[in-house]
Amino acid sequence: MAAAARYASRARPLSRPNPGVAALLVREGRVIARGLTQPGGRPHAEAVALEEAMARGGARGAVLYVTLEPCAHTSPRGPACADLVSKSGLSRVVIGVSDPDPRTVGKGAERIAQAGIAVTTLDSEDVRASLAGYLARARLGRPHVTLKLATSLDGCIALADGTSRWITGEAARAHVHSRRALADAILVGGGTWRADRPRLDVRLDGLEDRSPDRVLLTRGVAPDGVRVINRPEQIAALDTVQHLYVEGGAVAAASFLQRDLVDELHLYRAPIVIGDGQRSLSGLGLNRLKDAHGRWRACEMRRLGSDVFERYERVRDLPR
Amino acid sequence: MAAAARYASRARPLSRPNPGVAALLVREGRVIARGLTQPGGRPHAEAVALEEAMARGGARGAVLYVTLEPCAHTSPRGPACADLVSKSGLSRVVIGVSDPDPRTVGKGAERIAQAGIAVTTLDSEDVRASLAGYLARARLGRPHVTLKLATSLDGCIALADGTSRWITGEAARAHVHSRRALADAILVGGGTWRADRPRLDVRLDGLEDRSPDRVLLTRGVAPDGVRVINRPEQIAALDTVQHLYVEGGAVAAASFLQRDLVDELHLYRAPIVIGDGQRSLSGLGLNRLKDAHGRWRACEMRRLGSDVFERYERVRDLPR
Repeated sequence: MAAAARYASRARPLSRPNPGVAALLVREGRVIARGLTQPGGRPHAEAVALEEAMARGGARGAVLYVTLEPCAHTSPRGPACADLVSKSGLSRVVIGVSDPDPRTVGKGAERIAQAGIAVTTLDSEDVRASLAGYLARARLGRPHVTLKLATSLDGCIALADGTSRWITGEAARAHVHSRRALADAILVGGGTWRADRPRLDVRLDGLEDRSPDRVLLTRGVAPDGVRVINRPEQIAALDTVQHLYVEGGAVAAASFLQRDLVDELHLYRAPIVIGDGQRSLSGLGLNRLKDAHGRWRACEMRRLGSDVFERYERVRDLPR
Repeated sequence: MAAAARYASRARPLSRPNPGVAALLVREGRVIARGLTQPGGRPHAEAVALEEAMARGGARGAVLYVTLEPCAHTSPRGPACADLVSKSGLSRVVIGVSDPDPRTVGKGAERIAQAGIAVTTLDSEDVRASLAGYLARARLGRPHVTLKLATSLDGCIALADGTSRWITGEAARAHVHSRRALADAILVGGGTWRADRPRLDVRLDGLEDRSPDRVLLTRGVAPDGVRVINRPEQIAALDTVQHLYVEGGAVAAASFLQRDLVDELHLYRAPIVIGDGQRSLSGLGLNRLKDAHGRWRACEMRRLGSDVFERYERVRDLPR
């Protein structure tokens, strides 16, 4: 299932408005076919994998690993995957997470079981991470929000005069572009927009067309080709956006953190000290240190060139 | 030699005024005896290891791994180790680093070679780290300086009102105490002294007697039992101090960094964000970002409870 979750990241973000799902068909320990949700959302991953298997002699006896519960509703765009899966002669189906969509939740798995196929529904952490945007929309009514900060070891994002080119190195900057390519939209605050006129695009060979929509948090007017929200809460209305990538500045970052609207922190830290530079965050209204604890969990740490990348997840106790 | 370098840390800081050296005697792949520089500086590590081997039937045919070149000068406190080593029937001697002491440099190894024993002098990175204080005194004319910073993810050392208990957790704080126990002196700035009245002692079971000397960087008068320096450069005069551990605050830390008097940065970071808290460093007088690069190298990263510890070394191009 971890392999399926990793593979699923390739469906992002082109699968929208549907979640980026992956399906693997395995027989005798070998992957015989695989599928991803296709650009625009259809066909679904299971349909792609099953079609590939059919072209090679069928899926009889195979095990299907699919990151999200197969859909139980028919649509003008195709049959219900639960029906397709039920008719394919599979020996077993393993589901990464239940689909919170009320048309499907539990029903997809049930329909497959009723067809006589063994079904196991996991609650895989890897899969939850790969479907974080879809699950956040279903459970929190808003996109999944990643806040990126690129700082010196002492937490500065720029010299006092605003110079920020460059704090982090090439490997870290390329990594940022690869994260942009997985987002549906990038957001910056009005101050950063006016100061830096950032391009906010993906500058990686072959991924130029993955540049996400641009969103500005400002009380001012929208520049051409940019969506505007006035308050962080309005991200709920960005309904084509499952994954939102917030790139600062300090005021915008703090306003998302203060409203508890950040699900993931991505920290890039360069091996330099600056001292009295610009800070990464403005005030959060924190009165007691103990209120700051227990909210973030370190999930990943690695070197990127001479810099360090760290990923922290907001610890939330959510219904699943 | 890496094992010898690790073992050598046990000699610190009680070996002063002598460096904390380790010696291992190995025969047929097994350590048959070992020694550390004893409290007060004598006997030396080689003498201890050889005496232990003698008590067990001698060192004939063994290989001596010793972190620092055996001394070539006799002292009222004992014979030259190069002579002791030459007479012990060893098959081979491996030296971690040459002794920069002009009475010994190269002469220790030469005397052993003249006795017909094969000698190899490495320039081991592990050993250089273990003897950093001794080598800094010899090469830079001052102690080796470690700067410790304990911050939130966004680089704050306290809330805006000064509250700093607690940012890091118990495991990180115990690690700090273990680092204090390896230092000869701890330094804080006058502001931190007045604000926090820190005890600056070692509060670890069994290591209470390792509490280092306390030094204050201030223009004010010395409190009882505390040494005072007015400027960071005056650490050169702290002649019993090989390893100095600087614990802040922001002004003292910046004044050491600005004068390039920091050899190692120890960063403890808790998984919290603070926003507009107190910063870890005051101004460094940095005008161009590129001047900040190329100075620090990440050497160690690890989890301590829910916190992360990172160690950075100042990259210097020094004569060895």
